[in-house]
Amino acid sequence: MRFLDLIIKKRDGGRLTKEELTYFANAAAKGEIPDYQIAAMLMAIYFNSLDEEETADLTIAMAESGNMIDLSHVKGIVVDKHSTGGVADTVTLILASLVASAGVPVLKMSGKGLGFSGGTIDKLASVPGFSTEMPLEEAVKQCDEHGIVILQQMERLAPADKKLYSLRSVTGTVESIPLIAASVMSKKLAGGAEAMVLDVKCGTGAFMKNEEEAKALAETMVSIGKNAGRQTVALITDMNQPLGMYIGNSLEIIEAAEVLKGNVKGDVLDVTMELGAHMMVLAENDVNDLEEGRRILLENLQNGKGLAKFREFIEIQGGDPKVVDDYSLLPLSSIKREVHADKAGYIGIMDTEALGNAFVLTGSGRLNSDDELDYGAGIIMKVRIGDKVEKGDVIAEIFTEKKEIINEVEGMVAKAVPVCDEVPEKPKLIKYTIS
Amino acid sequence: MRFLDLIIKKRDGGRLTKEELTYFANAAAKGEIPDYQIAAMLMAIYFNSLDEEETADLTIAMAESGNMIDLSHVKGIVVDKHSTGGVADTVTLILASLVASAGVPVLKMSGKGLGFSGGTIDKLASVPGFSTEMPLEEAVKQCDEHGIVILQQMERLAPADKKLYSLRSVTGTVESIPLIAASVMSKKLAGGAEAMVLDVKCGTGAFMKNEEEAKALAETMVSIGKNAGRQTVALITDMNQPLGMYIGNSLEIIEAAEVLKGNVKGDVLDVTMELGAHMMVLAENDVNDLEEGRRILLENLQNGKGLAKFREFIEIQGGDPKVVDDYSLLPLSSIKREVHADKAGYIGIMDTEALGNAFVLTGSGRLNSDDELDYGAGIIMKVRIGDKVEKGDVIAEIFTEKKEIINEVEGMVAKAVPVCDEVPEKPKLIKYTIS
Repeated sequence: MRFLDLIIKKRDGGRLTKEELTYFANAAAKGEIPDYQIAAMLMAIYFNSLDEEETADLTIAMAESGNMIDLSHVKGIVVDKHSTGGVADTVTLILASLVASAGVPVLKMSGKGLGFSGGTIDKLASVPGFSTEMPLEEAVKQCDEHGIVILQQMERLAPADKKLYSLRSVTGTVESIPLIAASVMSKKLAGGAEAMVLDVKCGTGAFMKNEEEAKALAETMVSIGKNAGRQTVALITDMNQPLGMYIGNSLEIIEAAEVLKGNVKGDVLDVTMELGAHMMVLAENDVNDLEEGRRILLENLQNGKGLAKFREFIEIQGGDPKVVDDYSLLPLSSIKREVHADKAGYIGIMDTEALGNAFVLTGSGRLNSDDELDYGAGIIMKVRIGDKVEKGDVIAEIFTEKKEIINEVEGMVAKAVPVCDEVPEKPKLIKYTIS
Repeated sequence: MRFLDLIIKKRDGGRLTKEELTYFANAAAKGEIPDYQIAAMLMAIYFNSLDEEETADLTIAMAESGNMIDLSHVKGIVVDKHSTGGVADTVTLILASLVASAGVPVLKMSGKGLGFSGGTIDKLASVPGFSTEMPLEEAVKQCDEHGIVILQQMERLAPADKKLYSLRSVTGTVESIPLIAASVMSKKLAGGAEAMVLDVKCGTGAFMKNEEEAKALAETMVSIGKNAGRQTVALITDMNQPLGMYIGNSLEIIEAAEVLKGNVKGDVLDVTMELGAHMMVLAENDVNDLEEGRRILLENLQNGKGLAKFREFIEIQGGDPKVVDDYSLLPLSSIKREVHADKAGYIGIMDTEALGNAFVLTGSGRLNSDDELDYGAGIIMKVRIGDKVEKGDVIAEIFTEKKEIINEVEGMVAKAVPVCDEVPEKPKLIKYTIS
């Protein structure tokens, strides 16, 4: 098989066979195709796309290009949750604790944050002593004993994706729905998820800026899951404003604790409950429908079982569980700056990606994959879209150790959250469910 | 300037500025852009094309990415002739001798053949002693004294084209009209041509299989020439059958001599006269129009001045001029095989590319750029489209030293030149003139 012929076939709008896509994934993983040919293929796919079957074939081949983790020996059905990435999205921490407290095993691999989108691994790293590095056997043992474990994405999973991902970002081929879907799902399949709930973010602070694209991505990922024999549900949820009010690493640990304590209602909790209900049903744990799932999760929120599981989870992975009750044990940057409304009016739109970029600038996020983080930095939002404000009201609080960027961050936040004269329409939180 | 931004701009259908295209060409020439990014850009250009201005800007930048030869000090206006490549196209040798004999200076750089398309440098190399390697100063001196010189394309010209050309062939981006045009014209501009006559081949033995594409390529190249301030004319000529009857290296030297002796009329001569008439006009040599140009060239064919110039040309470049009169001084391969008509009828279509591939197989052409050639090998065609044949008539004669391929070549030629029952339409030789 000559890879050049495959490039030309795709360039001319042809379909690639399972055999051809498997060759592509394996040869890319082994370094047997030169980067310039992979780049040409990626651009041809950008223009001529992959159909449903091609996308599934490529994804499965990418997953199988390296080790495939088998979680079938874990007690119960392991349901993974994945978010396509957003701002102030601390759902994973709350959700994992809640569903685990209700008997759904959580063995989840997460990544570090990059760019405006935060990462669960970074948030957990802000808890003194917490470790997300452990051998898989230990993770399985912890899952069997405690029902919950979150560990770092293993480097060796889906090596074909590693190669394609690194080339996409430097060749202008990131924004291809089949390639995005294949990238996410190949890692999920290789990671052993037996069923999946996907949270596809949509809006100014998401990779998918409009509903059309978000729906296409969600449908593609659900189709891949089904083709690979894993039950998959996707929600499309709003990211036109930060999901929670806290953007940061230690800050999002605080927000997770506050939600689990029942002190905070709102969008974070609503998204958590909806994703959790689907996880309860997919786990086939005698939960008949979403309504029953929601009811059980609400019970475990109110009776404190979720919060207890969060403490247990922190403790078994080496962290100090007292942080849940004493936030002063978590790092918080020493320089604080308030951002004020420059006039009276309403909070209209938010440039949520700009808020994510401001969070990176505080020192809490990464521009490059090897950047060191200041876990105590970040931004606390004080308003949501639709809120009425008076001139001088506090819109946000910025925390950082970097005096030299504080004015810039303040300007970014003020610009990203303009005060408008008219009452805006609030964005709908859960837009679609695709299964 | 980030090259990734330029890829994305072109991917999204944007226009690249002169500044951006100049950066592209220079950075590519210097190896400052990774191959995978160039590959992605080439594929984006394949899909979204370049408009007239972008194409001219890129071509000029590619030409200026290395040395620019200045031929303004050569006596007279140097008019270059370029063919996009075909089978049995020995026009350059005849044309150069004829127009030089009429006072138009010819200083021409040519390439070696690759694939089904032959190369002038290879044909000349079949003449014992002939050399096409010389310093430019010597070439200019020879041109001033004798009015004719053909030398090998200099490696260092248009280094940006060298990089792009090598990547196009392995990334499925060869068939882009702006990229083909930019490749040809950047070398011509760098080579110092003051005016150009282009022979764009069209048909089964050309890179452009249909008239639409050939016209688009011709128009693009003429537009580049004009944008670069060089008068340019393009003819679109037929390549649905070999132009001449002799396909080979020494064989085409023989055909050139036969045409110059007035022994052979037909398509080779007709194309030569038409291209030559345009060269006469472009050279601004007191030739008022094409009619006058044709008349002078016909005179120099009939009075033997063209043939005399051919002998002179061979001699001054170290070759044995006696080959013109005694063809046995040229190499001819020892194994001969005739191909016969398998039934009575008419020569209908010819798969001319297949005939070119058969010529490669005899040993006279190249599959790879470092293949050694057997200059005496090749094919003599005995028929043209429209000819009536009886069963057993000789269709072609194959010459080679490679006994092991003779049956295969015979089969290829027989298949490429099928005998049909109906009288076919003869292809029109000179299809369009674009200026």
